[in-house]
Amino acid sequence: MKYQVVFQPSGRCGEVEAGTTLLAAAQGLGVHVEASCGGAGVCGKCVVTVKTARLDELDMVSSMAHMSPLTDEERRCLADEDIERGARLACQARVFGDVAVTVPEAPQSDAHVILESGEAHEVVPDPVVRRYELRLAPATLDDARDDMTRLIDGLHGAGVDGDVTIDTTVLRELPSRLRRAGYHVFVTMRRGLDESAGVEVIRVEPFSDEGNRGNMRGGVGIAVDVGTTTIAAYLVELESGRLIGTASRMNSEIAIGGDVLARISYAIGNEHGRERLQKLVIGDINDLVRELVSPAQMDVTDVDEMVLVYNTAMEHLTLGLDPSFVGKSPFVPAVSAPLDLKARDLGIAINPAAYVHSLPIEAGFVGADNVAVLIAEEPYKSEKTRLIIDIGTNGEIDLGSRTRLLSTSCATGPALEGAAIKHGMRAARGAIERVKIDAKTYEPSYKVIGNDKWQSIKTGEPVEENDVKPRGICGSGIIDVMAALYDAGVIAKSGRIKSALASVTTRVRETGGMWEYVVAWASETETGRDIVVTQADVRAVQLAKAALYVGARYLMEQYGVSEVDEVILAGAFGSYIDKKSAMTIGMFPACDIERVRAVGNAAGEGARMALISLAKRREAARVAREVEFVETAVEPDFQERFMDALAFGER
Amino acid sequence: MKYQVVFQPSGRCGEVEAGTTLLAAAQGLGVHVEASCGGAGVCGKCVVTVKTARLDELDMVSSMAHMSPLTDEERRCLADEDIERGARLACQARVFGDVAVTVPEAPQSDAHVILESGEAHEVVPDPVVRRYELRLAPATLDDARDDMTRLIDGLHGAGVDGDVTIDTTVLRELPSRLRRAGYHVFVTMRRGLDESAGVEVIRVEPFSDEGNRGNMRGGVGIAVDVGTTTIAAYLVELESGRLIGTASRMNSEIAIGGDVLARISYAIGNEHGRERLQKLVIGDINDLVRELVSPAQMDVTDVDEMVLVYNTAMEHLTLGLDPSFVGKSPFVPAVSAPLDLKARDLGIAINPAAYVHSLPIEAGFVGADNVAVLIAEEPYKSEKTRLIIDIGTNGEIDLGSRTRLLSTSCATGPALEGAAIKHGMRAARGAIERVKIDAKTYEPSYKVIGNDKWQSIKTGEPVEENDVKPRGICGSGIIDVMAALYDAGVIAKSGRIKSALASVTTRVRETGGMWEYVVAWASETETGRDIVVTQADVRAVQLAKAALYVGARYLMEQYGVSEVDEVILAGAFGSYIDKKSAMTIGMFPACDIERVRAVGNAAGEGARMALISLAKRREAARVAREVEFVETAVEPDFQERFMDALAFGER
Repeated sequence: MKYQVVFQPSGRCGEVEAGTTLLAAAQGLGVHVEASCGGAGVCGKCVVTVKTARLDELDMVSSMAHMSPLTDEERRCLADEDIERGARLACQARVFGDVAVTVPEAPQSDAHVILESGEAHEVVPDPVVRRYELRLAPATLDDARDDMTRLIDGLHGAGVDGDVTIDTTVLRELPSRLRRAGYHVFVTMRRGLDESAGVEVIRVEPFSDEGNRGNMRGGVGIAVDVGTTTIAAYLVELESGRLIGTASRMNSEIAIGGDVLARISYAIGNEHGRERLQKLVIGDINDLVRELVSPAQMDVTDVDEMVLVYNTAMEHLTLGLDPSFVGKSPFVPAVSAPLDLKARDLGIAINPAAYVHSLPIEAGFVGADNVAVLIAEEPYKSEKTRLIIDIGTNGEIDLGSRTRLLSTSCATGPALEGAAIKHGMRAARGAIERVKIDAKTYEPSYKVIGNDKWQSIKTGEPVEENDVKPRGICGSGIIDVMAALYDAGVIAKSGRIKSALASVTTRVRETGGMWEYVVAWASETETGRDIVVTQADVRAVQLAKAALYVGARYLMEQYGVSEVDEVILAGAFGSYIDKKSAMTIGMFPACDIERVRAVGNAAGEGARMALISLAKRREAARVAREVEFVETAVEPDFQERFMDALAFGER
Repeated sequence: MKYQVVFQPSGRCGEVEAGTTLLAAAQGLGVHVEASCGGAGVCGKCVVTVKTARLDELDMVSSMAHMSPLTDEERRCLADEDIERGARLACQARVFGDVAVTVPEAPQSDAHVILESGEAHEVVPDPVVRRYELRLAPATLDDARDDMTRLIDGLHGAGVDGDVTIDTTVLRELPSRLRRAGYHVFVTMRRGLDESAGVEVIRVEPFSDEGNRGNMRGGVGIAVDVGTTTIAAYLVELESGRLIGTASRMNSEIAIGGDVLARISYAIGNEHGRERLQKLVIGDINDLVRELVSPAQMDVTDVDEMVLVYNTAMEHLTLGLDPSFVGKSPFVPAVSAPLDLKARDLGIAINPAAYVHSLPIEAGFVGADNVAVLIAEEPYKSEKTRLIIDIGTNGEIDLGSRTRLLSTSCATGPALEGAAIKHGMRAARGAIERVKIDAKTYEPSYKVIGNDKWQSIKTGEPVEENDVKPRGICGSGIIDVMAALYDAGVIAKSGRIKSALASVTTRVRETGGMWEYVVAWASETETGRDIVVTQADVRAVQLAKAALYVGARYLMEQYGVSEVDEVILAGAFGSYIDKKSAMTIGMFPACDIERVRAVGNAAGEGARMALISLAKRREAARVAREVEFVETAVEPDFQERFMDALAFGER
């Protein structure tokens, strides 16, 4: 006598002889079940859940009727309430009828998100979106259940707990989908933050052995960090957490205003201003989605989940929330809770049944982007005090450890992202990303994105034909060039470009009434114009770095430390900033350079983690509530300390 | 010492002296609380729920701290679990702090839906949409909760239980809405079928003493009966159940196909065919909404809820569900459960946050329209056997009582709705709705919608100037004219028009090879053409009425009765059909005419009931599961019995 056993969520399925243990059945079908003790019934690690016993899902009979009785080992290893829910030890329970078995996934998995700095953060994937294989009985005159009921009965039969609903767009196509697939389908389901709220079917597609959508076992999702200046997006395989691709672009709202206050004014002061701004940023997101999926041979509608992080103002402008009151006292946002919105309600062109999860805002309305930084860097799990500086158009600074967590934000402006800088650009091919300056000759060498080597081209020298020619300077290059100019003595501690050097080097000159330093001559650039750093550029960087420095100092005082154990520099740069350069210009309180770590876009990393892990979403909701906000701009000595901090040099 | 008391859901609010009973407070504020025993603490009818005690909703303190302790009377009258939920007797509980009190609504209400037949059905309004008054504390630097949190805290403070979510479209406008209203607002909330699922905010608007939207206390909703041929819509005040207006129109899908099979073929066979059909019917619904709200001085976005009923095919075509398999064996629909869909997802232009509730389909896929008929006529509550014939393009027949309920459907065609009839029209101004024929002279008299009097215009006679001239014949007129022609001997039992009469009266004549009877001469009609009944018209009516008769007979056999106690004739006619005429042509098994009752659009009435009552929606879900479907067309003697039933005359 043979019986059918199906293992979920893998969907593997086969026949076994009566009396076979579930462990043997699993091994025979290539399903991994942990069993440290080798099947002796001692370790209790091979717990599985036997959910139902009839695969034709016409009748849900007790699972126990199709299984051997509980052994003493099982009674010892399993809690009563787990037994009630159908828990068995796979090495003990024997098959005496058709059964559906759910194998827990967590212990099988050791996936991690690799931060761009190369540091791996362990995140066990636990995505809100999961795909199940289902083999349904075809409709007949005798079994003419409607298609939705047939699907839901099948899901319950396959071990899905709780209420199941179906998105309208999926329901619309369900009849043809089921029949064209011969009733053998993959069903993609989505849970919300609230576990008791049930699951929703967001996709039904024909089963295929290789999976589909570029051989993904489960679905894919996209995490987006919507910065004021730069938008970065990550395409991720949900079940494994594997990063498939990255893309970024300038935020098109820059055309309306470089900073969020200008955009908010536009939204309030113009008819349909808010809608127009939303359309711009949603358009950017849709462009990034297209850019990400097409090299992976996927369609935009293959994307089953999205996570968005942003500062509070950009959250309003992206979700179409009235931003009128975010920018004025008492600075109240429309919402601070995490949100699950239908992609189609936002005009985001992915699977129309998919959800967009918006991470929560912190107390004091520090944005979801900083919550993402926190769940990526986890200072609240650290024994050491950790200072995190997230450099963006709005800088966010966190200081904390296991015992306490403080947060503040400051207006840095877009200079460190390469915007509002004369020859600034985002980190893309042709951007100067590293700069050194010879303290004797004042001649620079630089590294351009797209070239592996450093280049040092003397005045009048020709450039090699095959090299990528520079087009501008990106954020990391700007910080480098400031530190280099200061170290080489081209600019004074005050930030002033030393005009006297004009007699020593042609690199220093006055143009249109403003002093500047020439990083690259017209002959060597892509644009055919000199690439320069102007006095105004230096001032913009000074304002930005001073704001970050003062913010960090206030947090340290509030926390009660004179120095911190670790400094983390994060930001949506293409490449990491040089931590030495950052310390040289005085961006943060100086310390042993070994304690400083430059990471990539930590907000983006946190968004990716939230994309693949429900636990991380819950952690985000919790930390958003618990972090203490420190308001720095209202301190009486703020202005004075800010002016002090403008000077270059370690401090 | 004075304290503030707010009564929900009315939102009435005022100050009372410490020690005032809640009953006295309610009376003082004009809030009705039932108290049969006059406040002696005996009857237990004045139960209210004291939910929270602080109106500034910054802090939820125990309600008990602001009230007198429980009296012995209260301990006797109230169950422990009710006490735990904050239940008090209004005559006993005294105020010693700010409190919010919820008064149960059901006992206060005695609303009913009046069927078009004049019969009142008691339905206690219990709408899924409710409006609450809220007075929120303005945002300050010290209380800078985000707007959504402020609103939700306020709702909980006002006695709203469970999870509260906010529709995105409401959240988008929330900041300005709150501030423009000075934080004194009406909040409209919506529950689903599942009570544990929480409530959703679907509207926030400034509080106004008169209410708004045409002085409605609560919101308004629209029930729509989407027939294959006719669409009827009802505008209803949700809290009272009051019918504000009615409108109907032909289903525009008729342009694609007169019957649902033709439309399904079109949907399957043409690119975007399904979308095009959906657009037509949604366009009709949107037109009806506009037609209903504008005389009531409302905007379409004032409509907060919609209920839809239809046959199974029209459900697919209205919701955009793939209809490919509804029309062929085993006739499986995409869904049979009740559905709650966002109006915006269907393109229905009402409050974009509003839901559309679609009533469930029965076993055997008898449509939601018949479920609506059942909850309107409630045969399952009757001691007597009740035969319900719902006349539409698809006829539905129910037979049942308290002990058992059977249902079947049959294809009648649109003849009885005035379609597919040479001069048929829907029941509108100018339609001939009643017809008699003199058995001696063969001259007709008729009543036209828009005229109060019967008209009898002899051949060649002029018509009075002020009378509404006939334009065609509607359903009730068609049944009348058939019965009259048969009674007068113009048509034989077989349905054949007696050509021999052409020599006796000019009313009977042959035109283009087909015999016809002239009901109105060109000189007396609006169109300037003769209005006639043709042999083909007679045949169409014969097919329809035979289908209904045979269906009823099968149900009676299945039920085991040779006659029924009551017959109810329902249909989406403008006026009711004449029950005698219907029996004369043999539409249903003959019986004592006193036992027959003609009602209006019972499906529309059921839809209206579901619109104002959550209990009725649950009743619909239950009856849809429980009704037994009888398949008649597969019976071996169906064809023979159908042929037999074609003949005219009581049978």
